[in-house]
Amino acid sequence: MTQKTTRTLNQVDLASIGALVEKVRQEPHSAKTQWKAEVRWTGGFRSDSRCRDFGPVHSDEPTGLGGTNTAPNPVEQLLAALGNCLAVGYAANASAAGIEIRSLKIDLEGAIDLHTFLGLGGNNAGYESIRVGVHLDADATPAEIKALHEKVVGSSPVGHTLSRGVPLKIELA
Amino acid sequence: MTQKTTRTLNQVDLASIGALVEKVRQEPHSAKTQWKAEVRWTGGFRSDSRCRDFGPVHSDEPTGLGGTNTAPNPVEQLLAALGNCLAVGYAANASAAGIEIRSLKIDLEGAIDLHTFLGLGGNNAGYESIRVGVHLDADATPAEIKALHEKVVGSSPVGHTLSRGVPLKIELA
Repeated sequence: MTQKTTRTLNQVDLASIGALVEKVRQEPHSAKTQWKAEVRWTGGFRSDSRCRDFGPVHSDEPTGLGGTNTAPNPVEQLLAALGNCLAVGYAANASAAGIEIRSLKIDLEGAIDLHTFLGLGGNNAGYESIRVGVHLDADATPAEIKALHEKVVGSSPVGHTLSRGVPLKIELA
Repeated sequence: MTQKTTRTLNQVDLASIGALVEKVRQEPHSAKTQWKAEVRWTGGFRSDSRCRDFGPVHSDEPTGLGGTNTAPNPVEQLLAALGNCLAVGYAANASAAGIEIRSLKIDLEGAIDLHTFLGLGGNNAGYESIRVGVHLDADATPAEIKALHEKVVGSSPVGHTLSRGVPLKIELA
């Protein structure tokens, strides 16, 4: 009799994650990944981003900031990227720890002072801080949830990029 | 005879930008803006982000990283947010300077070592650096383009957030 073992938890394929970890252990250079995006300006404050073969994702500014309010703006997209990254972290680490996630919602917010963007002084055009509230309902003890949370926060690619800062080389091509 | 003055350049409404600048000059506190996003995990490494009343934007990971490859992943979204932000910066500052943009494409890329995310050592899960190539065709001299570029890079909300880093407060709610 053939027994099919489905090693999935939280719809995460544990075997493929295990294979990825094993591959990186065997071939450390395989951990080096490269990511790209292409952005095309489409008029006004609108633009489209494309990654790999996926269709365009629209960007715009609210009317109060001179846009036409057809899509989330770049600073909202930044918060979304952080939230999505943390969601992957919880799903991956909970699954590896045998914890079932019943639901997960992440609220993100941050403040920006427009003076610098508008050329009216100040020297920080970006977020002053970002607050994230994680609503996690999972089949685990409070101590296990706390350990999971600390692991996720300590290993988030977008989280680390934001909290540590990253060298940017922006050049006219 | 009524003369209607349409003060637009690059499809940017110069009057509304001017009004915004004037408002911030008169009422500095109006420059303080707050931005939010909400992310809901939808199974596996998939999640949806929502900002204001806009529909959900999907997120997933490539199959090689244990996902189902239905959308750009969070670290690609981060690059896209930076590119979209720079596009707004070029459109705003070119329009203010009377420069017509004929076309604008922005290529972004960066490298991430997966060791830290996978719990295999290292202490930076994020981008090591991000390179951005700006393809700008505009009705301006090379010196004007260079000045525009420096202004945009020096006043980008997403650019500053990334290059300086930002305090993150991530808590279980």
